[in-house]
Amino acid sequence: MTILISITGYDPERWAEIFRRAAPGRQVVTAPAGPADPAIRYAIVWKQPEGLLAGLPNLTAIFSLGAGVDHILRDRTLPDRPVVRIVAEDLTARMSEYVVWRVMDHFRRGFAYRAQQGQKLWHERLQPAAREITVGIMGLGNLGRDAAEKLKVLGFRVAGWSRTERRVDGVDTFAGEAGLGPFLAASDILVVLLPATPETKGILDAKLLSRLKRQTPLGAGPVLINAGRGSLQVEADILAALDAERLSEASLDVFESEPLPAASPLWTHPRVFVTPHAAAVSDPTALVPEILKQIEAFERGEPLRHVVDRQAGY
Amino acid sequence: MTILISITGYDPERWAEIFRRAAPGRQVVTAPAGPADPAIRYAIVWKQPEGLLAGLPNLTAIFSLGAGVDHILRDRTLPDRPVVRIVAEDLTARMSEYVVWRVMDHFRRGFAYRAQQGQKLWHERLQPAAREITVGIMGLGNLGRDAAEKLKVLGFRVAGWSRTERRVDGVDTFAGEAGLGPFLAASDILVVLLPATPETKGILDAKLLSRLKRQTPLGAGPVLINAGRGSLQVEADILAALDAERLSEASLDVFESEPLPAASPLWTHPRVFVTPHAAAVSDPTALVPEILKQIEAFERGEPLRHVVDRQAGY
Ligand SMILES: NC(=O)c1ccc[n+]([C@@H]2O[C@H](COP(=O)([O-])OP(=O)(O)OC[C@H]3O[C@@H](n4cnc5c(N)ncnc54)[C@H](OP(=O)(O)O)[C@@H]3O)[C@@H](O)[C@H]2O)c1
Ligand SMILES: NC(=O)c1ccc[n+]([C@@H]2O[C@H](COP(=O)([O-])OP(=O)(O)OC[C@H]3O[C@@H](n4cnc5c(N)ncnc54)[C@H](OP(=O)(O)O)[C@@H]3O)[C@@H](O)[C@H]2O)c1
Repeated sequence: MTILISITGYDPERWAEIFRRAAPGRQVVTAPAGPADPAIRYAIVWKQPEGLLAGLPNLTAIFSLGAGVDHILRDRTLPDRPVVRIVAEDLTARMSEYVVWRVMDHFRRGFAYRAQQGQKLWHERLQPAAREITVGIMGLGNLGRDAAEKLKVLGFRVAGWSRTERRVDGVDTFAGEAGLGPFLAASDILVVLLPATPETKGILDAKLLSRLKRQTPLGAGPVLINAGRGSLQVEADILAALDAERLSEASLDVFESEPLPAASPLWTHPRVFVTPHAAAVSDPTALVPEILKQIEAFERGEPLRHVVDRQAGY
Repeated sequence: MTILISITGYDPERWAEIFRRAAPGRQVVTAPAGPADPAIRYAIVWKQPEGLLAGLPNLTAIFSLGAGVDHILRDRTLPDRPVVRIVAEDLTARMSEYVVWRVMDHFRRGFAYRAQQGQKLWHERLQPAAREITVGIMGLGNLGRDAAEKLKVLGFRVAGWSRTERRVDGVDTFAGEAGLGPFLAASDILVVLLPATPETKGILDAKLLSRLKRQTPLGAGPVLINAGRGSLQVEADILAALDAERLSEASLDVFESEPLPAASPLWTHPRVFVTPHAAAVSDPTALVPEILKQIEAFERGEPLRHVVDRQAGY
């Protein structure tokens, strides 16, 4: 019943420690005993090395450390075992914090007021009310729906877009290619919480950006906030849209290439705010108990929850 | 039944226009017909000239354009007529927007991430969860209670301090001098929504700042956010507390002297964010109907609501 922790980019020992403390009866390792370690039943992974999981004969389930699973599915040798993604209150709350933070900073003109402060300029900017602004959320999954809820409490109108039809109380919902046009036409601030899949790759491109509103209550074109995945972005198109004022401002947490290369003009663009893929960090103290709960239920014969549809890619 | 609009610092004609459109049957003027104009029954004011109201023989009520009334009460010749302050959903919502914006920007380390972006530095900061942070609100009036409600939805623990004992669902409340110490000891982020009164003058001074936590989950001392009134602040003490790290960061919307003088070190302090008394602007299209509703009810014989206690000063 060994649990394997395979993590790239974060400290695997920290996760292993917390697993051991939470489940003292289990064997927890950060590397297989051999290439075909028969003891390993579960793998908890973030960007596992290609081929690692394929060699484990008794693996029964693969757990992602985060809400996204693109980092797992890209392994072309991935065995045919259930891939489970994280759905947890802590992670969801952190993403909504990021979304509210970025929406508020653009909406309340943080960029303009910071520039004014640099000039010692005392000047009140025109400020619409939240009820005059529609925040459009691309992706009405666990994260998108929670963000919608919190934005509604703050007084914003909220629209949402998903692959299949969804109904969310108090949110104008749109679905699929047919719904994309009207959804974009309604949105003053665009919040992207889509997963990285073959279908969403490069979705934030010139074509989509050309369908945005020309004028919003905040001034020029809409604001773009992306905390989904970098693969959604065509960064050259986003920069062109910013320079043409088709987009007024942007907050980006994810990038085509991470860490964002020093040569990227996004770093220095005066209307772009960059964070280092930190919108919603996976906190092991909050997430390890969730994963263990799933493993225990599974061992009692219950089905795994939040299993990824490998065809859809999320 | 003439309504007098006396406004300093904003455009009185804009308010008069909207009053005339909303109440076409009423006479609305921006100056009395003479120093003792007998037609004037109501005065809608923001920083009226000293002595103006004392001369009006038939004045029955004085309405503030905003939630604060300090700008009215400072007139030493103010006649003994009811002074009514604004309590309106639009104004309250705007203040809560400001509070949520500033709390989120400090909490999610906006200052640090903007500095990092300037250095093209890709580095994830330690990020506590909202539930680990207590926002302490000084002033549990209409504005403080609404801000508390919204901060709770975002996951923060909330404490509140008022003059008299208050109970607010899900908020740890403290009152008066006896409650101030424990309130300050609990607060990681301090949000000030007190009115300007003789009692609150200079309350944000070295003595109060010395009672703050030394260490918060965000690092050094607490964050200070003041959108109440500038008279609450002893700015030299706030600057000293920032430099001693007794305060880690501050967002100030109001100042001892407004516009904030160019010589003030607050403009250039790297851990201070300045806005030009713009936290919650009084939008005439939203507020004029509220004032008219009060006048109409009053003329039907109902009592005025939100009348100021001139002894307490708010
Ligand atoms: N930056 C960060 O720190 C961070 C942290 C955590 C997560 N994330 C990202 O956030 C993403 C969303 O997480 P989640 O838990 O909300 O996922 P989820 O519950 O699986 O929801 C995904 C949503 O996207 C929609 N969607 C997927 N493909 C689509 C398409 N081709 N067209 C239109 N809509 C499509 C889905 O539509 P249906 O409802 O019709 O299925 C669903 O509403 C993750 O995949 C991850 O990439 C980022
Ligand atoms: N920056 C801006 O754009 C802006 C815009 C609007 C308003 N404001 C400011 O916000 C203030 C608050 O507005 P509001 O509508 O919430 O006022 P409110 O309903 O009158 O509430 C005032 C609160 O402050 C408390 N308080 C007053 N004196 C105190 C003292 N000496 N010690 C402790 N607590 C005291 C009161 O205690 P009790 O509950 O015990 O009475 C009450 O909880 C206004 O007065 C104005 O100065 C600023």
